[in-house]
Amino acid sequence: MPPLKSWLRIPPHSDFSILNIPFGIITSRHSQVTHRPAIRIGDHVLDLLAFSRSAGFQKLPSFKEHLSVFEEPTLNAFAALGQPVHREVRRYIQEVFKEDTPYPELLKDNEEVQKECLLKEGEWKNHLPMRIGDYTDFFAGINHARNAGTMFRGAENALQPNYTHVPIGYHGRASSVVVSGTQVTRPNGQIILDPKAPGPKKPVFGPSRRLDIELELGCFLCTGNELGEPIKVNKAGENIFGYVLMNDWSARDIQNWEYVPLGPFNGKNFSTTISPWVVLQDAIAPFRTAKLETEASKSGELLDYLKEERDNTGLDINLEIDLTTPDGSTTTIGKVNAKNLIWSFEQMLAHHSSGGCNMRTGDLLGSGTITGEGEQEMGSLLEMTWGGSKDIWLVGMETRKFLKDGDEITLRGTCGEEEGGRVGFGECRGKVISAVVY
Amino acid sequence: MPPLKSWLRIPPHSDFSILNIPFGIITSRHSQVTHRPAIRIGDHVLDLLAFSRSAGFQKLPSFKEHLSVFEEPTLNAFAALGQPVHREVRRYIQEVFKEDTPYPELLKDNEEVQKECLLKEGEWKNHLPMRIGDYTDFFAGINHARNAGTMFRGAENALQPNYTHVPIGYHGRASSVVVSGTQVTRPNGQIILDPKAPGPKKPVFGPSRRLDIELELGCFLCTGNELGEPIKVNKAGENIFGYVLMNDWSARDIQNWEYVPLGPFNGKNFSTTISPWVVLQDAIAPFRTAKLETEASKSGELLDYLKEERDNTGLDINLEIDLTTPDGSTTTIGKVNAKNLIWSFEQMLAHHSSGGCNMRTGDLLGSGTITGEGEQEMGSLLEMTWGGSKDIWLVGMETRKFLKDGDEITLRGTCGEEEGGRVGFGECRGKVISAVVY
Repeated sequence: MPPLKSWLRIPPHSDFSILNIPFGIITSRHSQVTHRPAIRIGDHVLDLLAFSRSAGFQKLPSFKEHLSVFEEPTLNAFAALGQPVHREVRRYIQEVFKEDTPYPELLKDNEEVQKECLLKEGEWKNHLPMRIGDYTDFFAGINHARNAGTMFRGAENALQPNYTHVPIGYHGRASSVVVSGTQVTRPNGQIILDPKAPGPKKPVFGPSRRLDIELELGCFLCTGNELGEPIKVNKAGENIFGYVLMNDWSARDIQNWEYVPLGPFNGKNFSTTISPWVVLQDAIAPFRTAKLETEASKSGELLDYLKEERDNTGLDINLEIDLTTPDGSTTTIGKVNAKNLIWSFEQMLAHHSSGGCNMRTGDLLGSGTITGEGEQEMGSLLEMTWGGSKDIWLVGMETRKFLKDGDEITLRGTCGEEEGGRVGFGECRGKVISAVVY
Repeated sequence: MPPLKSWLRIPPHSDFSILNIPFGIITSRHSQVTHRPAIRIGDHVLDLLAFSRSAGFQKLPSFKEHLSVFEEPTLNAFAALGQPVHREVRRYIQEVFKEDTPYPELLKDNEEVQKECLLKEGEWKNHLPMRIGDYTDFFAGINHARNAGTMFRGAENALQPNYTHVPIGYHGRASSVVVSGTQVTRPNGQIILDPKAPGPKKPVFGPSRRLDIELELGCFLCTGNELGEPIKVNKAGENIFGYVLMNDWSARDIQNWEYVPLGPFNGKNFSTTISPWVVLQDAIAPFRTAKLETEASKSGELLDYLKEERDNTGLDINLEIDLTTPDGSTTTIGKVNAKNLIWSFEQMLAHHSSGGCNMRTGDLLGSGTITGEGEQEMGSLLEMTWGGSKDIWLVGMETRKFLKDGDEITLRGTCGEEEGGRVGFGECRGKVISAVVY
């Protein structure tokens, strides 16, 4: 498909080409109070509440009865309408923006509506796109699981016996999921200062000394299932609204002391940052790719409830991690492709609901840390510094093992290289501020 | 305090004496559609929406500006008003119901309002009392932790090194918390049929064969904290709205295969049942008792952020588990007191937020399984049957290791023995139905 041209000036390398049209929630210079839905295109956003009130959707009569979803402060109501509606609305917005739009009177040639509805960078502020019901974090990055396992148990026992059979996941904390740009307070917690010292371990309470990041993809659900009625794997794609970047901040020292036997808790629940624009299932579709095969699927042991008819449920998304030190210099510390996941989100969803657990509109699934096979393709500092045993080198010859106060992490992700045809996520950004003094 | 007398006939052994006044959400014979707040008293409920519309709160002028909270379909808005308001409203309702009420015209002598607002058993249906934000389950039952640990690791290593220092907890699934009376579908999942067989483990997918219960207390929060601003332990009591009984249904075989390294997931998230009436912090206050001392507190190693000024943050609540088989015969299979918790809910809350995690109105904390020291005081079948190695005997000489389809579990809990002065929870009930056929 040749890239569609727009009458709006879109920078050629923008993540937000006319092929993307991701949805988010903004406040604007016109109204700093009312959260409202918007789409991003190039360096602009279209305020969907204002556009809808300016009769911008008059040429999409099938959507007329649903216009109230743009009066909501989150995307939940829009998401709950289901994929066929998202598809129609996204295509319609593409029609409105394309060079030879059939409806120039709606926006292209309508200065008044442009002034009211089209905002330039700096004129809007992003907020959380969804009201999140439950947030679940998976562990589908097999290279990350292998690296972490090797550090803790040695190379031979790196992966637990269940790993290639079960899409391992745990319930995360929904309340502390924050939007890109929100500062991250370094957590205090119980830590063991010298884990190798002999004798009984005595924790101290204080600021985490091993504050880390995890590069992940997040997946928002548009629809769910009733309690007791599982979602089948080959239907699960229909429940997916779209994708965001996710930084699952992790305090390794807190986590390390607390996580036996019930899993990560305060080591994770102090903040999880997501990018603000939800890239819809349809926008990602052209960048679907073959999924990593699991050992279980290679050996024919994959259980039926996880078997997919489609062979392209992987995601070809180029991801990157930038670290900006307090002096303002930025180093790209990792580049990795999202293909490095052993389970598709469809499989995660089928597994999650297989015992009957009910999923809801606005639920968020995390992929788990995405790490590739190369040294420069790691999704966490834990792996880059091999458990804090070596430094990473930054611009200006600064070094890090874990994050210092004032460090800022920016995740980026983009699909496709073609000028004018990129589908990307923009930034997922967070700056570390000092721990609370107790 | 001598028990208050009411003009309403309250059975002398009712959990819902005039000293209780717990809050819940009902639909009624008058309106099967609109969920609305109510209080329970004896065998009746008072519909607070209807009572408020009948000017029932006219003698509580300070509450006038808040009356809209009773128009809500959950207790969240009422809870968010904070404890001083709950206190005032509960006392006012006690005034309305007491024998020598100063306001007989409001209800006692007003047949019309009674007909509209006071419902008898069978005339109402309970629903979830709160819109739950996040649900966190702790592990504060030290005897349960010791029993489970002994089964898995032997008596010498029963408790993990962190256990007496950290209020261990994990994030649970909020969407599948259901109200008493909701049927529980047996989960399907990955299980290892013969865990002791040599060679690599091969899971099968099918109905759990080891479906269990966990007797717990649940604690609902009325207020929370901003992200990054911890709740201090000696203030944490103010954030507690009240308590419910909780059955944390657990599929032991699914849990056993999945839980390494990130904790319980599908083994727990298929259903969690709570009792419908939230017993307020004030109603429980007379039944506060000394809390179990932790090893850390005995040895002076308890970290400051967990040190409580009050010495009575334990809860003296008598709990009981009944199992009813499909033929209708009921056996009490366990009796235990809630004193057997190593951490108070105040400590759990202080720990949970200590890294900055934000708590919200409607969040639910579970205590963890409560088990006492005696053989008849166990809070799970896992413990009663010592990992399924022996039977429990029921009325009619039936036996169980784990639950069969059609079994119903009822939890009960009550404080105080005095006639007319009981503060109890009523029932937390759930019946197991067959697994979905895949």
